[in-house]
Amino acid sequence: MSVQITDEDFMRVALAEAEQALAMDEVPVGAVLVAGGEIGARAHNRRETDGDPTAHAEVLALREAARRRGHWRLHGTTMYVTLEPCPMCAGALVNARVDRLVFGAYDPKAGAAVTLFNLVEDPRLNHRLEVRGGGLAEEAAELLRGFFRRRREEGEE
Amino acid sequence: MSVQITDEDFMRVALAEAEQALAMDEVPVGAVLVAGGEIGARAHNRRETDGDPTAHAEVLALREAARRRGHWRLHGTTMYVTLEPCPMCAGALVNARVDRLVFGAYDPKAGAAVTLFNLVEDPRLNHRLEVRGGGLAEEAAELLRGFFRRRREEGEE
Repeated sequence: MSVQITDEDFMRVALAEAEQALAMDEVPVGAVLVAGGEIGARAHNRRETDGDPTAHAEVLALREAARRRGHWRLHGTTMYVTLEPCPMCAGALVNARVDRLVFGAYDPKAGAAVTLFNLVEDPRLNHRLEVRGGGLAEEAAELLRGFFRRRREEGEE
Repeated sequence: MSVQITDEDFMRVALAEAEQALAMDEVPVGAVLVAGGEIGARAHNRRETDGDPTAHAEVLALREAARRRGHWRLHGTTMYVTLEPCPMCAGALVNARVDRLVFGAYDPKAGAAVTLFNLVEDPRLNHRLEVRGGGLAEEAAELLRGFFRRRREEGEE
């Protein structure tokens, strides 16, 4: 007998990753890639730490999962991420053939799954994802708000 | 006295990179990132070789240039790439704050600078690039056509 693991459970793991980013003074975004009910990769934003413009949580999780699988095609996977993906990350999810995207907070500044663009369900591209937005959005957004509030306060000192 | 290096000169370097991809049986796309008239990074598509869904020429060149610069912000740079960037790569160029994009062949299947989307000049995003398309497009397209022709022929054997 096994107990079903829910989207919310995996999103909590992604939130824990986002908290790790926060502790490193990175914009707090976390991601988890799941295949067959198991976590294939987990990552958090490391842009400043790595000095890498592509080191968003989703890209790092995709690269790690592909390394483990030994192939760039990540069929049969779901990406959980605390913030709606930007165009780069949404495009990476399409390129990697990820099946499903579950994200937390909507991103009014760069959201590319729903808000500004919908790159993950576009019929002109050679792959589309099933999308679910807004899961644990309040927790994810509060982490981000706290980060930017602190940064503003520090900037004012 | 110094002689001006033209866009076409740098695009020829990108084409040489694409030819290296072709020799490795990768989709032949090459990229060069230039800063202050000098090549800061050069790369070619390595998706199959690395088993990495994000290992497009542009992403690899951005990561290498950022590593050398020691920072993710690549202000003052121009990306030369033989094929119009896909959504992932167009988004990465925006994220990296690249100033200018010069590409070769237009991509009817995934082009995200002009053809299907225009992600690099969107006023809603926090950075925009100057774009020039179609430079040495015939040479770049011929490399790609040759690759896919050969792949089809091999598939038919």
